Amino acid sequence: MDVYEKLKSLGLTLPEPPPLGGLYAPVKRTGNLLFCSGQGPTLKGIPLFTGKVGSDLTVEEGQAAAKACTLNVLSILHAYTGDLNRIVSVVKILVFVSSAPGFFQQPLVANGASQLFIDLFGEAGRPARSAVGHNELPGNIPVEVEGVFEVT
Amino acid sequence: MDVYEKLKSLGLTLPEPPPLGGLYAPVKRTGNLLFCSGQGPTLKGIPLFTGKVGSDLTVEEGQAAAKACTLNVLSILHAYTGDLNRIVSVVKILVFVSSAPGFFQQPLVANGASQLFIDLFGEAGRPARSAVGHNELPGNIPVEVEGVFEVT
Amino acid sequence: MDVYEKLKSLGLTLPEPPPLGGLYAPVKRTGNLLFCSGQGPTLKGIPLFTGKVGSDLTVEEGQAAAKACTLNVLSILHAYTGDLNRIVSVVKILVFVSSAPGFFQQPLVANGASQLFIDLFGEAGRPARSAVGHNELPGNIPVEVEGVFEVT
Repeated sequence: MDVYEKLKSLGLTLPEPPPLGGLYAPVKRTGNLLFCSGQGPTLKGIPLFTGKVGSDLTVEEGQAAAKACTLNVLSILHAYTGDLNRIVSVVKILVFVSSAPGFFQQPLVANGASQLFIDLFGEAGRPARSAVGHNELPGNIPVEVEGVFEVT
Repeated sequence: MDVYEKLKSLGLTLPEPPPLGGLYAPVKRTGNLLFCSGQGPTLKGIPLFTGKVGSDLTVEEGQAAAKACTLNVLSILHAYTGDLNRIVSVVKILVFVSSAPGFFQQPLVANGASQLFIDLFGEAGRPARSAVGHNELPGNIPVEVEGVFEVT
Repeated sequence: MDVYEKLKSLGLTLPEPPPLGGLYAPVKRTGNLLFCSGQGPTLKGIPLFTGKVGSDLTVEEGQAAAKACTLNVLSILHAYTGDLNRIVSVVKILVFVSSAPGFFQQPLVANGASQLFIDLFGEAGRPARSAVGHNELPGNIPVEVEGVFEVT
């Protein structure tokens, strides 16, 4: 089953690539690697979630936000590659979590991103990963996800 | 026009590479990629800016700090490569912004870095990017910039 | 002297790879690069240190924590490669330091990681590096270390 059919079977729709929020390229290629700019949990540029995980948002909401970030990562990869099936490996992701004081479950939040990559790409989608807490993120989003991908 | 003439036309002078602030290499090469260590807005090792953006510093000052970080990144790339014209792509930057509570405009601050790369390298200088907030950065600097570059 | 003999001569024992703390791969390979997931200062999954550097922990304790993180990075590289002598370069590390308000010595803490890499791999082990402060890290650990490595 290809990636687009898997998205469909999960009940997910690939969003439009988010409007640029500054001077950067959504994706940059070097060799067989694609470096993706950090994406927030937005739809058409509007945050679906704001605030800090551990106070404003629960872990479950944080996971949903991480999944929304990941859909945006996929949207810019689709726009860049023209075909998500060309992605052969999710190499590395970095998950930034806006964290309330005393919130220590950033890895649980980050699972919301990893799970979608694994659902879509199987074990090749299981990334190396760091998940860390931040006092503030752009636009008061709770999660931001960046990644490195290998393509054919 | 080469990179050094562009720097001149922008009224900018390449600083000396900053003194090392610890046990690391300013630049490490693997294949055609150069990984640059995070650089602060310093001159001869002295911070030009300190404090948090959103309280101690305005967005505009934060952008000036990001530009100063970028000049240091360029200084270590020049020292490593001997010729900045060998850089064919600014692949990815990560911009760490020391952020006051409630400061959410890290992307605007990071534009101070991106703009200089674009001015010098054109569209090849437009990087993939993440911009995130931190509660504290080394030496109380407001911004730190690291990057991955492709060379010939 | 090979890496394992150097570890022995430093009085260090390679720990077992830590249990996975979420949905990720400890190491992902692309080309000759290994991307390692962020590791904390744990032994058998139990944190050896918790809290923030600058309040709960001294700089020296932070350095010991960074060294413990690095041993875990080495443990997952050993498990992945089967032979740490295959590592030809420590390309880049990112050192996340849980930082008390007003703590600005993240680079000193990160030296605890760099020093061990240099001890084991010589100048090839001297990494490009960023060291930054965070308000919270997973499980209340004081330090997390991720890295990119080149192998034969």
